[in-house]
Amino acid sequence: MNLPAGFSYSALYAGIRKARQDDLALIFSTVPAAAAAVFTRNRVQAAPVRLARKHLESSGGEAQAILVNAGNANCATRTGARVALACCQAAAKGLKVKTNRVLPASTGVIGVELDPALITTAMPRLIEGLAADRFEDVSRAILTTDTFAKTAFAEVAVKNGIVRIAGMTKGAGMIQPNMATTLGFVLTDAAIMPPMLRPMLRKAVDLSFNRLSVDGDTSTNDTMILLANGASGCNLKASDRQVFSEALHHLMQDLARQIAKDGEGARKRITIEVSGAADEASASVIARAIANSPLVKTAIAGSDPNWGRILSAAGNSGVAFDPRKADIWLQDVKVCTSGLAADFSEPELKEKLNGDECVIRFNIRGGGPGRSRFWTCDLTEKYIEINASYRT
Amino acid sequence: MNLPAGFSYSALYAGIRKARQDDLALIFSTVPAAAAAVFTRNRVQAAPVRLARKHLESSGGEAQAILVNAGNANCATRTGARVALACCQAAAKGLKVKTNRVLPASTGVIGVELDPALITTAMPRLIEGLAADRFEDVSRAILTTDTFAKTAFAEVAVKNGIVRIAGMTKGAGMIQPNMATTLGFVLTDAAIMPPMLRPMLRKAVDLSFNRLSVDGDTSTNDTMILLANGASGCNLKASDRQVFSEALHHLMQDLARQIAKDGEGARKRITIEVSGAADEASASVIARAIANSPLVKTAIAGSDPNWGRILSAAGNSGVAFDPRKADIWLQDVKVCTSGLAADFSEPELKEKLNGDECVIRFNIRGGGPGRSRFWTCDLTEKYIEINASYRT
Repeated sequence: MNLPAGFSYSALYAGIRKARQDDLALIFSTVPAAAAAVFTRNRVQAAPVRLARKHLESSGGEAQAILVNAGNANCATRTGARVALACCQAAAKGLKVKTNRVLPASTGVIGVELDPALITTAMPRLIEGLAADRFEDVSRAILTTDTFAKTAFAEVAVKNGIVRIAGMTKGAGMIQPNMATTLGFVLTDAAIMPPMLRPMLRKAVDLSFNRLSVDGDTSTNDTMILLANGASGCNLKASDRQVFSEALHHLMQDLARQIAKDGEGARKRITIEVSGAADEASASVIARAIANSPLVKTAIAGSDPNWGRILSAAGNSGVAFDPRKADIWLQDVKVCTSGLAADFSEPELKEKLNGDECVIRFNIRGGGPGRSRFWTCDLTEKYIEINASYRT
Repeated sequence: MNLPAGFSYSALYAGIRKARQDDLALIFSTVPAAAAAVFTRNRVQAAPVRLARKHLESSGGEAQAILVNAGNANCATRTGARVALACCQAAAKGLKVKTNRVLPASTGVIGVELDPALITTAMPRLIEGLAADRFEDVSRAILTTDTFAKTAFAEVAVKNGIVRIAGMTKGAGMIQPNMATTLGFVLTDAAIMPPMLRPMLRKAVDLSFNRLSVDGDTSTNDTMILLANGASGCNLKASDRQVFSEALHHLMQDLARQIAKDGEGARKRITIEVSGAADEASASVIARAIANSPLVKTAIAGSDPNWGRILSAAGNSGVAFDPRKADIWLQDVKVCTSGLAADFSEPELKEKLNGDECVIRFNIRGGGPGRSRFWTCDLTEKYIEINASYRT
C-alpha cells in the first residue's frame, strides 16, 4: 500500500538508550500540516507533552514535524522543559520551520536527566537521513519493550480522489496505558482543517486506544498525534467525513489491537465483549473491570476456563446487575448461564484456550442496549521478569 | 497468651479440597454471643454470605457458632442456598442451638457445586472434636493459597478485669480483597451488646482490612465476623470502649499485615504512607493507586528504586496535586524531591530494598493534614504460577 504523500522519515541511534538500537526519529511534512493531538491525563506530565500542547496552541493547530526519542521519557527532570525546547529548536533550525511547528514526544525511563547534546548533535545527520520510504525505520525507533513494530495503513476513496493514512504506535507495558507510555503518530495526505481534525482524532482514540483496558488513565508521556498535510490535493468534504472517519477508526483499532497482542510477556490477546448493560458507559465499566483483573488474566494465561473470576470481576465493577441473568462465553463456548456453571467440556475448552486469541463474552440477559469491546492480554511470568528490572 | 474464655474449636478433613488438609472447621461459643459481621460488597455474593447475613438479622445479632469450609466457595452454584442451609442445620442440631445461631462462611473455587453430604456426614466428628485449645487447628483449616496461618491475640485490662481477644484470618490472592476471599474471625470474652459491637467492627475493618490495597472491592465470599460471648464476666463499660477498640484495631491491623506478608508469590511486604493530602480520603486514594500499580509492585520485587513509577501512579490516582511539591522516600531514603530525582546512592538503596519489608513514603509538601497508610506486597513470577492454574 502507498504511503501518504508529502511526508519523509528519519531515524538513528543517538546514544539515549543503552542498547544500540535507533532511539531518535523525525517525521517531516514537506508542507505545513493541520495537527491534532490527544495527551495523557496524568497529573504528572512530561516536558515534551507540555511543550507539544503549547506548540499546538500557539500555532493554531499547525505542525510540520514530529521529533521523538525513546530511552528517556524526559519526565520529572530538572532540565526537562529546557531540553525539550532546545531539541525542537535544533530540529526547527535544520528544517527551516518555526519552532512551534515541531511537536516533541519522548518515551522511556522517568526521572533521569536527558542530555540535549545527544539530540542536537545528531540533528544534522537525522535531517539528512529524511526519506519518503523510511516510515518503518521510525516505527522501530520508537519502541521500548515492544517485540515488534506496529503499523497500519489505509487508502480511502473520497469525492475528489484517493487519500492515504499511515499510522504507527508503540506498546504500553501490561496493556495499561496508565503506567507505560503509548505513543502513536497517524499521518494522512488528506486536507482537513484543524476544527474538523480534532474531534475526529478524539473519537478515534475513544474507540481504540481508550479501549485498551484503561480509559483515560494514562502515563506521564502518552501522546497521540494526527497530521493532515493535504499533499494528496484532496480536500475532505463534509460528505467524505464518514468514510474517512471509519477508515481512521479501523486503522487505529488495528494499532491498538497490535499493542494488546504485544503486551509485556503476553502470549495471548484477550478481547472482551460486554452486552446487555444499561448503556455503553456501563458496558465499558464492566469490560474494563474484567480486562484489569489479574486473576482473569492469569487464568487465561493458564488456559483455565475459570469463569467464576470473570463473574466476580464484573460483580466488582460497581455496575449494578443481577448475577442470575449473567451469561458468559469463552471462545464461543458458554461457560456460565444465569450466573451458574453451564454444561461444557473442560478439556475441549482448555484446548481452545491454548491459542493466541481469547474472546470473553459477557451478556446480561434481558438487559439494556449497552455494548462495549475492550482489548487486553494475558498476564505471564515474563511480565514480571521484564518489569522487575526495567531500569537496571 | 490466654485465649478468650468460653470458646471451643474443631477442624477436620472432609474431602472438600483435593489436598488432604483440614477443610472444615467449627468455632463454638458455650454461651450465646453478640455477633457483628462485615461482608463483601461484590454484586455477586456467595450463598453462605447471604445466609449469614440473614441469620444475623433474624437472630438480632446473636450467634453461637461459625461453620467454615475451604476448597469450595459455594458461590454461583445451583444448590448454593440449600447446601449452606443444610450445613448450618446439621451443625445446629448437633450443637443444640437454633439454626440462625450458626454463621456459615466458605472459601475456594467459584461455580462448582458443593456436596452437602461431605459436611453433614462429617458433622458428628467435627462437633466431637471441639476443644478449647484447637484455635490453631481452625486457623490452618481455613487457608487456601496461604503459606502460613495468621493469628493474633490480645489481653485488655478493663474496669472490671481482663478480657481477651483472639483473631484469625486467611489471605487474599495478590492482596487485593477484590478477587480472592478474605475470611476473618475475631473472638472475645468481653460482654458487648450488638449495637456497640457493630460500629466497633466496622471501624476496625476500615483501619485494617480495607487498607489492604483495595477498599470496598471485595470477593464474592469476604466475611469478617466478631463474636463477643461475655464469658470473662466483664461487661464492657462506655469508659472501656476506647481501650478495647484500640486493642481490636491493633489486632486486626496485625492480621491484615500478615496477609500482606503472605501475598501469593510475595517476597516483600510493602507499606505505603501518604501524607500532605487535603484529607484522609484523598490520601487513601493516592495510597491505593500506588499499592495497586503492577509496575510499582514489580519494581519493588526487583529492588529497583524506580520512583518515577510511584510518582506516575500517584498522578493517575485522580487526586489533584502539584507534582513539583511531591517528595518520595523508599526505605527512608529520599528518592524524589519536588517531583525530581533526589541525590541518593542507587547501589546502597538497592541493597536496602533486598529485605522483606519495603516502606514507600509519599508526601505533598505544604499540603493538607490528610494521611493514610496502606499495605500491599510485591508482584513476582510466583504469583502468576499460582494463579494460572488455580483450578487445574
